[in-house]
Amino acid sequence: MTACRRIVLAERPKGKPTEDNFRLEEGELPAPGEGQITVRTIWLSLDPYMRGRMDDAKSYAEPVAVGGTMEGAGVGEVIDSRHPGFVPGDIVVGRTGWASHALLAGASARKVDPALAPISTALGVLGMPGHTAWVGLNRIARARPGEAIVVSAATGAVGSVVGQLASLRGLRVVGVAGGAEKCRYAEQELGFDACLDHRAADARALAEGIRQAAPGGVDIYYENVGGKTLEAVLPNMNTFGRIPLCGMIAWYSGQGVADAMRVPALWRTILVRRLRVQGFIIFDHDDSFGAFLEEVAPLVRKGRIRYRESVAEGLENAPCAFLKMLDGGNFGKQLVRVGPDPAGT
Amino acid sequence: MTACRRIVLAERPKGKPTEDNFRLEEGELPAPGEGQITVRTIWLSLDPYMRGRMDDAKSYAEPVAVGGTMEGAGVGEVIDSRHPGFVPGDIVVGRTGWASHALLAGASARKVDPALAPISTALGVLGMPGHTAWVGLNRIARARPGEAIVVSAATGAVGSVVGQLASLRGLRVVGVAGGAEKCRYAEQELGFDACLDHRAADARALAEGIRQAAPGGVDIYYENVGGKTLEAVLPNMNTFGRIPLCGMIAWYSGQGVADAMRVPALWRTILVRRLRVQGFIIFDHDDSFGAFLEEVAPLVRKGRIRYRESVAEGLENAPCAFLKMLDGGNFGKQLVRVGPDPAGT
Repeated sequence: MTACRRIVLAERPKGKPTEDNFRLEEGELPAPGEGQITVRTIWLSLDPYMRGRMDDAKSYAEPVAVGGTMEGAGVGEVIDSRHPGFVPGDIVVGRTGWASHALLAGASARKVDPALAPISTALGVLGMPGHTAWVGLNRIARARPGEAIVVSAATGAVGSVVGQLASLRGLRVVGVAGGAEKCRYAEQELGFDACLDHRAADARALAEGIRQAAPGGVDIYYENVGGKTLEAVLPNMNTFGRIPLCGMIAWYSGQGVADAMRVPALWRTILVRRLRVQGFIIFDHDDSFGAFLEEVAPLVRKGRIRYRESVAEGLENAPCAFLKMLDGGNFGKQLVRVGPDPAGT
Repeated sequence: MTACRRIVLAERPKGKPTEDNFRLEEGELPAPGEGQITVRTIWLSLDPYMRGRMDDAKSYAEPVAVGGTMEGAGVGEVIDSRHPGFVPGDIVVGRTGWASHALLAGASARKVDPALAPISTALGVLGMPGHTAWVGLNRIARARPGEAIVVSAATGAVGSVVGQLASLRGLRVVGVAGGAEKCRYAEQELGFDACLDHRAADARALAEGIRQAAPGGVDIYYENVGGKTLEAVLPNMNTFGRIPLCGMIAWYSGQGVADAMRVPALWRTILVRRLRVQGFIIFDHDDSFGAFLEEVAPLVRKGRIRYRESVAEGLENAPCAFLKMLDGGNFGKQLVRVGPDPAGT
């Protein structure tokens, strides 16, 4: 048996989640069964999609049960293995949940090479968020050199990779982020052509800012947020534009939903400008993970794609960090350091 | 000089158009210049898109000017020609506008073969509406046998062809139309698997009707109307469904816009079910007209694709017929008989 601490869903949120929705529990894990491994979590990933799992609503995945461990991916060290592919000491990424230790099916875990990059990147730029960026840009939006793209949540784990990949491919990149510091970072460190602060503008002013930053119009809007940013981008969309719909964090907890724009104006823009709006979920694209890693890992190693992490210390601080992230309080990929990293990253 | 009667836009409508927005004028056409032909209009086409041209709003085409002739396509007889490709007596289709006679660039007119089918079909099943149906189904929705499709405005010029083509291809076809008579026609004459009356149901009941008519869910929603029908279809959409967005007649004159559904619920459905919504305009697809005609003309000749026409008599009745059509008062392709048809159809 292995002692284990975990964060469970204490109750479903009503609108905006609070710390009361979570509870820290202690328990024990049984020894691994045939084909299983026991993992000591080092890094836990916090991602906007987790907000959806807290609700009891039909979605692409089952909701977390009340009393159940919060779902999520983590990077950890194998401490016991009954799977032939893993030995203690291996570093893996898998669906550990918000927990200090997890029992995983070996078949569901993926080995992480600590020589490739800091192991935390397997949850960010070289993990699900980076892969999401790559799929949305290539497979969904089918970005072409010379086009202009607007990226919302521009300094987040997904948006920052979208913008940098697009820039490397010869697109004009306009970010939208919350706050002057993030915008400066996007322009100066990530190489975006421009980045607009949605906190400093209403939808109309933001629309005008986008018009000036992309004077030839917008060919791709990489949608992570919904809300005011969507409203501001729409009038700037070019004929035959594409909107890969990846997330809508502004609306996840119900704020702004009741007075959001109505469908007719959106529908008219899609029709008149012949736009393509396409929702996608990264789980449908596992087949391309290898191609993604092959392309992007070298770019990260050479520093041509940069990343930034927000680290919360200790599993017990995961709820607070998660709530902050939902309000845009993170800066880059949000992680929780759950245990010591043997690689020292 | 040729005497000419025409319907002009007297004033822009405020919301729902009325007969006062139109005016009949008499005038004269000059003789054709080099490369031009003079056409005597026989059949005028009335189409929902014309509603958009009456507004002074940015769209894919310029609005009709106040005092200008209402735009539209007509089939007519060449009565004078200074274009080598046409001689008097030829039947052509072109953008005559709402007028008894028109001066057209020969290069913009297309000859119609009266032996192929009644010449009025060049405005319907074998013209722009039929081509629109074909493009939306094949190129935009990429329909596959075994899928289920919902078609709104199911007995209209576009919807009736969408449903019949889909049925011939092995899709399950559910129509939505206004009134029991149209629904009966769609099921009994057009061979739809089911057709639901949107006048007899609110959005919730309509959604339940669609659920029963397409128990495996809906893979394609061919969107012609917006409004309540869109709301009813959305909860029935299957993962990876497609919505070719062809029109939104329910919202063209502003009715229902102020209390239409808001974007967040739509956005969530698109994201969670990974839908693809794509606007399209037939003018972008001229290159495929030949392929369309080659496939569909024989089907019409063999009676495997049926069509129905609503005919208004006389140019002066075009406004009234147009207003009626916007409220769904037509039954099949809406035409105006502007002058005698030499083929007697």
